[in-house]
Amino acid sequence: MFSDLFEKGTKASSDFFTGTVWVKMLVTDEDGIFDTQVYNVVFEPSSRTHWHSHPGGQILIVTRGKGFYQEKGKPARPLKPGDVVEIPPNVVHWHGAAPDEEFAHIGMSTRVHLGPTKWFGPVTDEEYKSAVEEK
Amino acid sequence: MFSDLFEKGTKASSDFFTGTVWVKMLVTDEDGIFDTQVYNVVFEPSSRTHWHSHPGGQILIVTRGKGFYQEKGKPARPLKPGDVVEIPPNVVHWHGAAPDEEFAHIGMSTRVHLGPTKWFGPVTDEEYKSAVEEK
Repeated sequence: MFSDLFEKGTKASSDFFTGTVWVKMLVTDEDGIFDTQVYNVVFEPSSRTHWHSHPGGQILIVTRGKGFYQEKGKPARPLKPGDVVEIPPNVVHWHGAAPDEEFAHIGMSTRVHLGPTKWFGPVTDEEYKSAVEEK
Repeated sequence: MFSDLFEKGTKASSDFFTGTVWVKMLVTDEDGIFDTQVYNVVFEPSSRTHWHSHPGGQILIVTRGKGFYQEKGKPARPLKPGDVVEIPPNVVHWHGAAPDEEFAHIGMSTRVHLGPTKWFGPVTDEEYKSAVEEK
Protein backbone atom coordinates (compact mmCIF):
# COMPACT_ATOMS: atom_id res chain seq x y z
CA MET A 1 0.00 0.00 0.00
CA PHE A 2 1.32 3.40 -0.90
CA SER A 3 0.58 5.00 2.45
CA ASP A 4 3.03 2.56 4.01
CA LEU A 5 5.78 4.49 2.29
CA PHE A 6 5.62 6.97 5.14
CA GLU A 7 5.33 6.77 8.90
CA LYS A 8 1.85 7.67 10.08
CA GLY A 9 3.15 10.82 11.76
CA THR A 10 1.41 12.70 14.53
CA LYS A 11 -2.27 13.09 15.30
CA ALA A 12 -3.65 16.35 13.95
CA SER A 13 -5.15 18.87 16.36
CA SER A 14 -8.88 18.69 17.08
CA ASP A 15 -8.80 22.48 16.80
CA PHE A 16 -8.66 22.07 13.02
CA PHE A 17 -9.75 18.49 12.27
CA THR A 18 -12.82 16.35 13.05
CA GLY A 19 -12.12 12.70 13.90
CA THR A 20 -8.71 11.04 13.78
CA VAL A 21 -6.27 12.42 11.22
CA TRP A 22 -2.52 11.73 11.01
CA VAL A 23 0.01 14.13 9.51
CA LYS A 24 3.60 13.29 8.57
CA MET A 25 5.64 16.29 7.43
CA LEU A 26 7.89 15.43 4.47
CA VAL A 27 9.32 18.87 3.65
CA THR A 28 9.06 21.58 6.31
CA ASP A 29 10.97 24.17 4.24
CA GLU A 30 11.84 26.06 7.39
CA ASP A 31 14.32 28.27 5.56
CA GLY A 32 11.91 29.05 2.72
CA ILE A 33 14.12 27.70 -0.08
CA PHE A 34 11.25 26.00 -1.91
CA ASP A 35 8.34 28.22 -0.81
CA THR A 36 6.49 24.87 -0.58
CA GLN A 37 5.70 22.48 2.26
CA VAL A 38 4.95 18.78 1.63
CA TYR A 39 3.20 16.28 3.91
CA ASN A 40 1.35 12.98 3.95
CA VAL A 41 -2.10 12.92 5.56
CA VAL A 42 -4.07 9.83 6.60
CA PHE A 43 -7.77 10.27 7.44
CA GLU A 44 -9.59 7.55 9.35
CA PRO A 45 -13.16 6.87 8.11
CA SER A 46 -15.42 9.98 8.35
CA SER A 47 -12.58 12.20 9.56
CA ARG A 48 -11.99 15.51 7.81
CA THR A 49 -10.43 18.94 7.96
CA HIS A 50 -12.33 21.95 9.19
CA TRP A 51 -13.29 24.52 6.60
CA HIS A 52 -10.11 26.37 5.65
CA SER A 53 -8.25 28.27 2.95
CA HIS A 54 -4.62 28.79 1.92
CA PRO A 55 -3.35 32.24 0.90
CA GLY A 56 -0.83 30.53 -1.44
CA GLY A 57 -2.96 27.58 -2.58
CA GLN A 58 -2.65 23.83 -2.09
CA ILE A 59 -2.25 20.70 -4.26
CA LEU A 60 -3.43 17.22 -3.20
CA ILE A 61 -2.38 13.87 -4.71
CA VAL A 62 -4.69 11.06 -3.57
CA THR A 63 -2.80 7.86 -2.75
CA ARG A 64 -5.31 5.55 -1.08
CA GLY A 65 -8.94 4.97 -0.19
CA LYS A 66 -11.99 7.10 -0.88
CA GLY A 67 -12.45 10.72 0.11
CA PHE A 68 -14.04 14.01 -0.77
CA TYR A 69 -13.09 17.58 -1.59
CA GLN A 70 -15.66 20.34 -1.30
CA GLU A 71 -15.47 24.06 -1.93
CA LYS A 72 -17.92 26.19 0.05
CA GLY A 73 -21.22 26.43 -1.79
CA LYS A 74 -20.40 23.74 -4.36
CA PRO A 75 -21.13 19.99 -4.57
CA ALA A 76 -18.50 17.70 -3.06
CA ARG A 77 -16.08 15.97 -5.45
CA PRO A 78 -15.45 12.28 -4.75
CA LEU A 79 -11.74 11.36 -4.77
CA LYS A 80 -9.94 8.12 -5.62
CA PRO A 81 -6.26 7.13 -5.79
CA GLY A 82 -4.37 9.00 -8.55
CA ASP A 83 -6.68 12.02 -8.45
CA VAL A 84 -5.02 15.42 -8.25
CA VAL A 85 -6.79 18.43 -6.70
CA GLU A 86 -5.68 21.97 -7.43
CA ILE A 87 -7.00 24.32 -4.74
CA PRO A 88 -6.55 27.98 -5.69
CA PRO A 89 -5.56 30.59 -3.11
CA ASN A 90 -8.24 31.77 -0.69
CA VAL A 91 -10.88 29.22 -1.73
CA VAL A 92 -12.67 27.98 1.40
CA HIS A 93 -12.86 24.16 1.34
CA TRP A 94 -12.50 20.91 3.25
CA HIS A 95 -11.13 17.44 2.44
CA GLY A 96 -11.51 14.16 4.22
CA ALA A 97 -12.46 10.48 4.21
CA ALA A 98 -15.65 8.76 3.11
CA PRO A 99 -17.85 7.60 5.99
CA ASP A 100 -16.65 3.99 5.92
CA GLU A 101 -13.24 4.11 4.26
CA GLU A 102 -9.78 5.37 5.13
CA PHE A 103 -8.30 8.02 2.84
CA ALA A 104 -4.76 9.27 2.29
CA HIS A 105 -3.21 12.03 0.24
CA ILE A 106 0.07 13.81 -0.22
CA GLY A 107 -0.46 17.54 0.28
CA MET A 108 1.59 20.47 -0.93
CA SER A 109 1.14 23.97 0.42
CA THR A 110 2.44 26.29 -2.28
CA ARG A 111 3.64 29.90 -2.11
CA VAL A 112 3.74 29.61 1.66
CA HIS A 113 5.36 33.04 1.96
CA LEU A 114 1.86 34.45 1.37
CA GLY A 115 0.84 33.34 4.84
CA PRO A 116 -0.54 30.53 7.00
CA THR A 117 -3.74 28.54 6.56
CA LYS A 118 -6.94 30.30 7.65
CA TRP A 119 -9.51 28.23 9.56
CA PHE A 120 -13.28 28.69 9.57
CA GLY A 121 -14.66 26.06 11.95
CA PRO A 122 -15.83 22.45 11.69
CA VAL A 123 -17.66 20.81 8.83
CA THR A 124 -20.75 19.89 10.81
CA ASP A 125 -22.17 16.36 10.73
CA GLU A 126 -25.09 17.76 8.74
CA GLU A 127 -22.81 19.41 6.19
CA TYR A 128 -20.71 16.24 5.94
CA LYS A 129 -23.68 13.90 5.50
CA SER A 130 -25.19 16.15 2.87
CA ALA A 131 -21.91 16.38 0.98
CA VAL A 132 -21.12 12.67 0.82
CA GLU A 133 -24.56 11.14 0.35
CA GLU A 134 -25.16 9.33 -2.92
CA LYS A 135 -21.61 9.93 -4.10
CA MET B 1 1.93 -0.69 -7.09
CA PHE B 2 1.90 3.02 -6.48
CA SER B 3 3.10 3.95 -9.95
CA ASP B 4 -0.12 2.46 -11.31
CA LEU B 5 -1.92 5.43 -9.77
CA PHE B 6 -0.91 7.42 -12.83
CA GLU B 7 -0.79 6.79 -16.55
CA LYS B 8 2.75 6.25 -17.74
CA GLY B 9 2.68 9.50 -19.72
CA THR B 10 4.94 10.36 -22.61
CA LYS B 11 8.49 9.32 -23.37
CA ALA B 12 10.99 11.93 -22.26
CA SER B 13 13.28 13.52 -24.85
CA SER B 14 16.67 11.92 -25.50
CA ASP B 15 18.00 15.48 -25.56
CA PHE B 16 17.78 15.48 -21.75
CA PHE B 17 17.49 11.83 -20.66
CA THR B 18 19.54 8.65 -21.22
CA GLY B 19 17.53 5.46 -21.76
CA THR B 20 13.75 5.17 -21.56
CA VAL B 21 12.03 7.57 -19.17
CA TRP B 22 8.30 8.32 -18.95
CA VAL B 23 6.86 11.62 -17.69
CA LYS B 24 3.23 12.24 -16.75
CA MET B 25 2.44 15.87 -15.92
CA LEU B 26 0.08 16.16 -12.93
CA VAL B 27 0.03 19.93 -12.41
CA THR B 28 1.24 22.11 -15.31
CA ASP B 29 0.44 25.39 -13.49
CA GLU B 30 0.28 27.19 -16.80
CA ASP B 31 -1.19 30.30 -15.21
CA GLY B 32 1.39 30.41 -12.42
CA ILE B 33 -1.11 30.19 -9.55
CA PHE B 34 0.97 27.71 -7.53
CA ASP B 35 4.46 28.60 -8.78
CA THR B 36 4.96 24.80 -8.69
CA GLN B 37 4.76 22.04 -11.30
CA VAL B 38 4.11 18.40 -10.34
CA TYR B 39 4.77 15.26 -12.37
CA ASN B 40 5.28 11.51 -12.10
CA VAL B 41 8.44 10.06 -13.63
CA VAL B 42 9.11 6.37 -14.37
CA PHE B 43 12.70 5.36 -15.19
CA GLU B 44 13.36 2.01 -16.84
CA PRO B 45 16.45 0.18 -15.48
CA SER B 46 19.69 2.18 -15.94
CA SER B 47 17.85 5.19 -17.40
CA ARG B 48 18.56 8.62 -15.95
CA THR B 49 18.35 12.36 -16.42
CA HIS B 50 21.22 14.35 -17.87
CA TRP B 51 23.10 16.60 -15.48
CA HIS B 52 20.84 19.56 -14.75
CA SER B 53 19.85 22.23 -12.26
CA HIS B 54 16.69 24.13 -11.33
CA PRO B 55 16.80 27.88 -10.63
CA GLY B 56 13.85 27.41 -8.21
CA GLY B 57 14.77 24.00 -6.76
CA GLN B 58 13.08 20.60 -6.94
CA ILE B 59 11.61 18.04 -4.52
CA LEU B 60 11.41 14.29 -5.26
CA ILE B 61 9.23 11.70 -3.48
CA VAL B 62 10.31 8.15 -4.34
CA THR B 63 7.37 5.82 -4.91
CA ARG B 64 8.83 2.62 -6.34
CA GLY B 65 11.98 0.66 -7.11
CA LYS B 66 15.61 1.57 -6.56
CA GLY B 67 17.34 4.67 -7.84
CA PHE B 68 20.06 7.21 -7.24
CA TYR B 69 20.50 10.94 -6.73
CA GLN B 70 23.89 12.53 -7.22
CA GLU B 71 25.09 16.09 -6.92
CA LYS B 72 28.13 16.99 -9.03
CA GLY B 73 31.33 16.17 -7.17
CA LYS B 74 29.62 14.19 -4.40
CA PRO B 75 28.92 10.47 -3.85
CA ALA B 76 25.59 9.18 -5.20
CA ARG B 77 22.76 8.68 -2.70
CA PRO B 78 20.79 5.43 -3.09
CA LEU B 79 17.00 5.96 -3.06
CA LYS B 80 14.14 3.69 -1.96
CA PRO B 81 10.35 4.14 -1.75
CA GLY B 82 9.35 6.78 0.80
CA ASP B 83 12.60 8.73 0.48
CA VAL B 84 12.31 12.48 -0.05
CA VAL B 85 15.03 14.47 -1.81
CA GLU B 86 15.31 18.24 -1.41
CA ILE B 87 17.35 19.69 -4.27
CA PRO B 88 18.31 23.33 -3.64
CA PRO B 89 18.30 25.89 -6.45
CA ASN B 90 21.19 25.79 -8.93
CA VAL B 91 22.71 22.54 -7.63
CA VAL B 92 23.87 20.46 -10.63
CA HIS B 93 22.65 16.87 -10.23
CA TRP B 94 21.08 13.81 -11.86
CA HIS B 95 18.57 11.18 -10.78
CA GLY B 96 17.65 7.86 -12.26
CA ALA B 97 17.20 4.11 -11.91
CA ALA B 98 19.55 1.43 -10.63
CA PRO B 99 21.12 -0.69 -13.37
CA ASP B 100 18.70 -3.58 -13.01
CA GLU B 101 15.58 -2.09 -11.40
CA GLU B 102 12.82 0.28 -12.44
CA PHE B 103 12.46 3.47 -10.41
CA ALA B 104 9.63 5.98 -10.03
CA HIS B 105 9.24 9.27 -8.24
CA ILE B 106 6.85 12.17 -7.99
CA GLY B 107 8.70 15.39 -8.80
CA MET B 108 7.89 18.96 -7.87
CA SER B 109 9.57 21.91 -9.50
CA THR B 110 9.26 24.76 -7.04
CA ARG B 111 9.48 28.55 -7.55
CA VAL B 112 9.21 27.98 -11.29
CA HIS B 113 8.98 31.72 -11.91
CA LEU B 114 12.75 31.80 -11.38
CA GLY B 115 13.25 30.10 -14.73
CA PRO B 116 13.44 26.80 -16.61
CA THR B 117 15.70 23.82 -15.95
CA LYS B 118 19.30 24.20 -17.14
CA TRP B 119 20.89 21.16 -18.82
CA PHE B 120 24.57 20.19 -18.81
CA GLY B 121 24.85 17.06 -20.95
CA PRO B 122 24.60 13.30 -20.35
CA VAL B 123 25.75 11.36 -17.32
CA THR B 124 28.27 9.20 -19.19
CA ASP B 125 28.29 5.42 -18.79
CA GLU B 126 31.55 5.79 -16.88
CA GLU B 127 30.08 8.39 -14.50
CA TYR B 128 26.96 6.25 -14.00
CA LYS B 129 28.86 3.02 -13.33
CA SER B 130 31.16 4.78 -10.89
CA ALA B 131 28.21 6.36 -9.06
CA VAL B 132 26.12 3.23 -8.59
CA GLU B 133 28.75 0.58 -7.94
CA GLU B 134 28.74 -1.01 -4.50
CA LYS B 135 25.64 0.94 -3.47
